[in-house]
Amino acid sequence: MKDVKIGLLGCGTVGTGVAKILYENKDLIRSRVGAGLFLKHVADLDMETDRGIRFEEGVFISDAFQVVDDPEIDIVIEMIGGETIAKELILKAIDNGKHVVTANKALLASSGNEIFRAAAKKGVDIAFEASVGGCMPIIKTIRESLVGNRIKAMTGILNGTCNYILSKITDTGISFKKALEKAQDSGFAEADPTLDVEGFDTAHKLTILSSLAYGMELNLKDIYVEGISNITPMDIEFAKQFGYRIKLLAISKYSENFVEARVHPAMIPAGNLLSNVNGSLNAVSVTGDAVGDIILYGHGAGMMPTASAVVGDTVDIARNLMLGISNRIPSLSYQVEHIRTIPVKPIEEIDNHYYFRFSALDRPGVLSKISGILGDLGISLKSVHQKGRESRGPVPIVMLTHIAKEANVRKAFDQISKLDVMSDAPVLIRIEDEE
Amino acid sequence: MKDVKIGLLGCGTVGTGVAKILYENKDLIRSRVGAGLFLKHVADLDMETDRGIRFEEGVFISDAFQVVDDPEIDIVIEMIGGETIAKELILKAIDNGKHVVTANKALLASSGNEIFRAAAKKGVDIAFEASVGGCMPIIKTIRESLVGNRIKAMTGILNGTCNYILSKITDTGISFKKALEKAQDSGFAEADPTLDVEGFDTAHKLTILSSLAYGMELNLKDIYVEGISNITPMDIEFAKQFGYRIKLLAISKYSENFVEARVHPAMIPAGNLLSNVNGSLNAVSVTGDAVGDIILYGHGAGMMPTASAVVGDTVDIARNLMLGISNRIPSLSYQVEHIRTIPVKPIEEIDNHYYFRFSALDRPGVLSKISGILGDLGISLKSVHQKGRESRGPVPIVMLTHIAKEANVRKAFDQISKLDVMSDAPVLIRIEDEE
Repeated sequence: MKDVKIGLLGCGTVGTGVAKILYENKDLIRSRVGAGLFLKHVADLDMETDRGIRFEEGVFISDAFQVVDDPEIDIVIEMIGGETIAKELILKAIDNGKHVVTANKALLASSGNEIFRAAAKKGVDIAFEASVGGCMPIIKTIRESLVGNRIKAMTGILNGTCNYILSKITDTGISFKKALEKAQDSGFAEADPTLDVEGFDTAHKLTILSSLAYGMELNLKDIYVEGISNITPMDIEFAKQFGYRIKLLAISKYSENFVEARVHPAMIPAGNLLSNVNGSLNAVSVTGDAVGDIILYGHGAGMMPTASAVVGDTVDIARNLMLGISNRIPSLSYQVEHIRTIPVKPIEEIDNHYYFRFSALDRPGVLSKISGILGDLGISLKSVHQKGRESRGPVPIVMLTHIAKEANVRKAFDQISKLDVMSDAPVLIRIEDEE
Repeated sequence: MKDVKIGLLGCGTVGTGVAKILYENKDLIRSRVGAGLFLKHVADLDMETDRGIRFEEGVFISDAFQVVDDPEIDIVIEMIGGETIAKELILKAIDNGKHVVTANKALLASSGNEIFRAAAKKGVDIAFEASVGGCMPIIKTIRESLVGNRIKAMTGILNGTCNYILSKITDTGISFKKALEKAQDSGFAEADPTLDVEGFDTAHKLTILSSLAYGMELNLKDIYVEGISNITPMDIEFAKQFGYRIKLLAISKYSENFVEARVHPAMIPAGNLLSNVNGSLNAVSVTGDAVGDIILYGHGAGMMPTASAVVGDTVDIARNLMLGISNRIPSLSYQVEHIRTIPVKPIEEIDNHYYFRFSALDRPGVLSKISGILGDLGISLKSVHQKGRESRGPVPIVMLTHIAKEANVRKAFDQISKLDVMSDAPVLIRIEDEE
């Protein structure tokens, strides 16, 4: 069997990891696959940086378009990222009949419908395991292992930066701002952390998972997204007292005619396995009608773990090439004609348990005013915690609710915010807890 | 595309689950696979029991050999279990050119080399995801997702019965015997629990995993196996005090010229995710050179979770049949010519941390005698715990060691057992802890 020829676009962190695996574990891969994976070209504009790899003469080039146009190359691995040049290169590669491996969740979440349609038309495969959960085989699990299951729900910790920051605040009591700085110093957060800490990266991943699990078109724009930048050590401390931990969750649930799909910080019981996923690690739980709950756990980012998933995808395609087949498994898990537009339920219609924290001046009647507003909107309280004033400042009033509708909670917050005894904006954190 | 025709051998618990999924999620499977999975025959000697499924006329028969000889049937699912008739049927099916799905770990661990050779010769696929870890896609993960990794170690909780019993003892302090009775009452243990509680079932699974991960021939006989029937509430209590939990572990580690492969109860740090896998649940951690650690978690047994994995395998083969291919991925993860005989390191040569508990009469000099023997054999102690006598009975002396060689520990135990101050057989539990 002749070698499968690969072109790698982008040799940054993950791209370098991919090249390293293809070189260092070359014999291992051959002994498992029965053919070699030959890295014909690596394209990156930065041809100076020492990546610790000795590329053979002529392998490293600067022009990515030369790679996607090379008739000898079978598989293109896109590791450039971003939504402009990467998209152009992927579409060109598809048009040239090449199979594509990518980890580009932002691109797939926003332009996936177009890209997958183009690939289906050309009969080429798009593999993207590394786009969600880094090394965890969550896409393969949903698409292949759970093929006989009606998937009912998924809950994921899918962003290492956020999980690192929340773990730091939980362990040390420092502020979000300080924890973010620590994350940046340790290489767990980017200089501009917006995409991660505001939840958008998690939303990209949830878009992809929801599509795979439920047979729905990719729909990023309807996912509710709330990040972690407002999470305070005080709320994490209260959460602890009530037996919860705070995590940034990707949550998705399936019902007959809609799905829930939302990203926000949530309190989960300390005994829950997801509560114990700390630092930059990721985990995702999938609930299916046959399988019950299964959980995958591992490094959601980083050079080598992400590269491991990219190589897994590349081998999957190589095995198909060796047998002269393609499209063995539909990219989005369902046959194209079965992919539906399923509406995402607006966040206002979601029912949840809630944690509220109000900062109020310590005056008589405050509690009665707040609880009156909540009661009028049908929000029933499970417990109320008010500590006596220790200083002259405002006192925190903490409430946990029974199941309530988000729309009513928002109305109540509007009214409560306007009370003249409120000294700060009220805090709301959703609680994910089976009762 | 015409339907793929399936014959199911054995309609007990898991077999019934498989039939249920194939009937109830028929449309779902078709929308994902692009063809139907048609259950042509189900064979079971028990044709009376109501399984809650309406089989069509002529589907349910008593003769399993009729199924494997039916030229129309593409895939045979063996759910009979045991090592006699199941083996005969599988070999017959292979000989007839049929692909086989099985969950029969005992058979694969003992006769797998023969079965896989026969399958390779005939060019048919043998799929066995459900043989290890029930619903968890551990075989697919090792074989496909981690294909670019040198796998260095695996640690698994692979037997739900043992994990249920150990969790019960940990939570309630009852004896092994009482906990086993509870497990039997709740359907988590068989009437004859030997295969489970003595660790053999776990050893079968570890045999399969080691082969897949390291490219070695299946080798059950050299795996060290120790069950949980000697675990007492007292040792579990001591473990708690030292920050450990006791689990029955399948442990396997790879070095250049040998593997470690052993099954025994072990203490693991309470903060370790595996420590928090409770009840009948299973989990397995895999360490690879690129991926770092990844953990899969889920139901390791039970009708529907196991059936979920069987259906996943069946669909994998169906997808190949639809494209006219087979042997896309080698059954044992490595190409046949790369599967080696790798020796399993004898338990005596293993280095470990140990927990010892000695029951000694409360006489002067006991501690010095015991520690003298240990010192002479180079076993160095990390800590010693001796409580003052509360009654007239023997006192427990508990010791935790630094890394020591098992051979020396065994010699020491021989000598210590012969001391006339010893009132009971000494207890040894290995500690799996990275220092």
